[in-house]
Amino acid sequence: MSSFWSKNPRMQAKINHICDLIAERVAVRNPAIETAIVDLSTAGGKYLRPAFFYLFSEFGQTEAKNEGKLLKIATSLEILHMATLIHDDIIDDSPLRRGQKTIQSRFGKDVAVYTGDLLFTVFFELILESMADTPYMTINAKTMKKILMGELNQMHLQFNQEQSIRSYLHSISGKTAALFRLASKEGAYFGGADTKVVALAGRIGFNIGMAFQILDDILDYTANQHTFNKPVLEDLTTGVYSLPLLLALQKEPQTFKPFLDKKNTISLTERQLVAQKVIDLGGIEAARQLARRFTEKGLTDIEKLPSVKAQKQLFQLTNHLLKRHI
Amino acid sequence: MSSFWSKNPRMQAKINHICDLIAERVAVRNPAIETAIVDLSTAGGKYLRPAFFYLFSEFGQTEAKNEGKLLKIATSLEILHMATLIHDDIIDDSPLRRGQKTIQSRFGKDVAVYTGDLLFTVFFELILESMADTPYMTINAKTMKKILMGELNQMHLQFNQEQSIRSYLHSISGKTAALFRLASKEGAYFGGADTKVVALAGRIGFNIGMAFQILDDILDYTANQHTFNKPVLEDLTTGVYSLPLLLALQKEPQTFKPFLDKKNTISLTERQLVAQKVIDLGGIEAARQLARRFTEKGLTDIEKLPSVKAQKQLFQLTNHLLKRHI
Repeated sequence: MSSFWSKNPRMQAKINHICDLIAERVAVRNPAIETAIVDLSTAGGKYLRPAFFYLFSEFGQTEAKNEGKLLKIATSLEILHMATLIHDDIIDDSPLRRGQKTIQSRFGKDVAVYTGDLLFTVFFELILESMADTPYMTINAKTMKKILMGELNQMHLQFNQEQSIRSYLHSISGKTAALFRLASKEGAYFGGADTKVVALAGRIGFNIGMAFQILDDILDYTANQHTFNKPVLEDLTTGVYSLPLLLALQKEPQTFKPFLDKKNTISLTERQLVAQKVIDLGGIEAARQLARRFTEKGLTDIEKLPSVKAQKQLFQLTNHLLKRHI
Repeated sequence: MSSFWSKNPRMQAKINHICDLIAERVAVRNPAIETAIVDLSTAGGKYLRPAFFYLFSEFGQTEAKNEGKLLKIATSLEILHMATLIHDDIIDDSPLRRGQKTIQSRFGKDVAVYTGDLLFTVFFELILESMADTPYMTINAKTMKKILMGELNQMHLQFNQEQSIRSYLHSISGKTAALFRLASKEGAYFGGADTKVVALAGRIGFNIGMAFQILDDILDYTANQHTFNKPVLEDLTTGVYSLPLLLALQKEPQTFKPFLDKKNTISLTERQLVAQKVIDLGGIEAARQLARRFTEKGLTDIEKLPSVKAQKQLFQLTNHLLKRHI
């Protein structure tokens, strides 16, 4: 289990309940898959989507809350996230996730396909049980489609050296920001907050999600394999070009062309050369600036929330997540 | 388009509407995927699940029907079926489906993963739009989980020479019969039939689905690659042992052991030798007998349905599908 929430035992307790519910719902006849899912759920993920959900649920009336229902919704968010992680790892051929072998490298692509599918059905089951009589069923279905569309869009742009910043932002708004938006918005809604807070929550979640993904993409360029459990710039091999590279590429397309034209045959040394050129051309600094704009929008909106304890916690969490590497 | 429904222009027209709705719903920014799905939907599938759905919808009051809603539900059934086909083809490494290259052999496993996922989201979207206020949302979620469980169970049994007939039947009841059951049952329900007919429809669909899958598995042992567009006994290479083999294996485990122990290195010649031994030991005849029992149960129940035109059509369709190869 991650130590991310060690200073917030209340949130840690909620996350433990989510882990228990995940283990309960993925009980299948195939022990390998059951173990794989439980391992992934306890491998130190930060449970950020359920955390934003729970923090935003604090803005409503205490008496209106149904803890069992909130737990199911919080769990549905993490399960949907896990399903997309597992299928993404198939696409990226990633060996590691959260410092452990990915399901596909441990059991093969086949098991990974069905494991993701199983999680989609559990997601579906949980939201049906918790929100069938609300407009959020449709909002969940739309979000799931947006996430897929973001992934498909990203795949469509693979190895495309001419893709625009706009299309990158469009992809990450689907693949990442949509789920942060949903988590925050449905937290406020099911916690019983008023419509103004629900709308604000959606916007805050979206902007935090955008900043979060940009910073995650920057990490690929600055991280050391040892400390972040992720091989350096593996995305270049699969043709996924993220913001720092795209910003540098716009400045000097000819510098990168000979490397990127090698497509999936680009070597580790060449990838590291590309990273150095991205840094030299200010790609990382420019990407950070854009992330900062999304973060600031989020923080400004958090200030507009009612001043309850959760507002302060949201402020701290956002700062902790998004400012430490800026 | 298949000629399966050429003698039933009314059903053919409904199927054409389904194809149109599929094309409309899978419009994405990734043209390769859009084309792949549309090609699969028009590649000559028999649309059996929507067909059973529509035939059972005829047992209710005509005035109660909402054609737009029925179309969405019929389409959801075919879309869920297509999603599972696409992911199954990844697992089986199948080169062909309906005589055309599979999505995974045409575009790679990666595209196939997301294409299946996209279809799951469209399935979800369609049932939400058509049945959110009915108990069938939950029944659909449960069916989707059953299908996955059937697949996972089958995968768990791969290369297991000691698996029982019972566990085989359990797998196919999930992976195939559950969806035929759902199609028939929700056809009767949304067509406005009474509860007795709805229950009967579910049982008929289930038994037809069981017989259909057993006969499909028998075809692997009797089909000629040229006429059925499927390599002979490719399932042996992936360790999926179906009913004819399991029945023969029970009689003479030692005969098969040296071949099956080769697992995925078994050669085509060896696979054909296995097929001959299955035939010699009466495995196919015994499997046909079991299929016949499910077919007879289905036909007996069809006789109990109100004698409207659809009853006769169900009788003919079932006979056509399940008796021609017996």
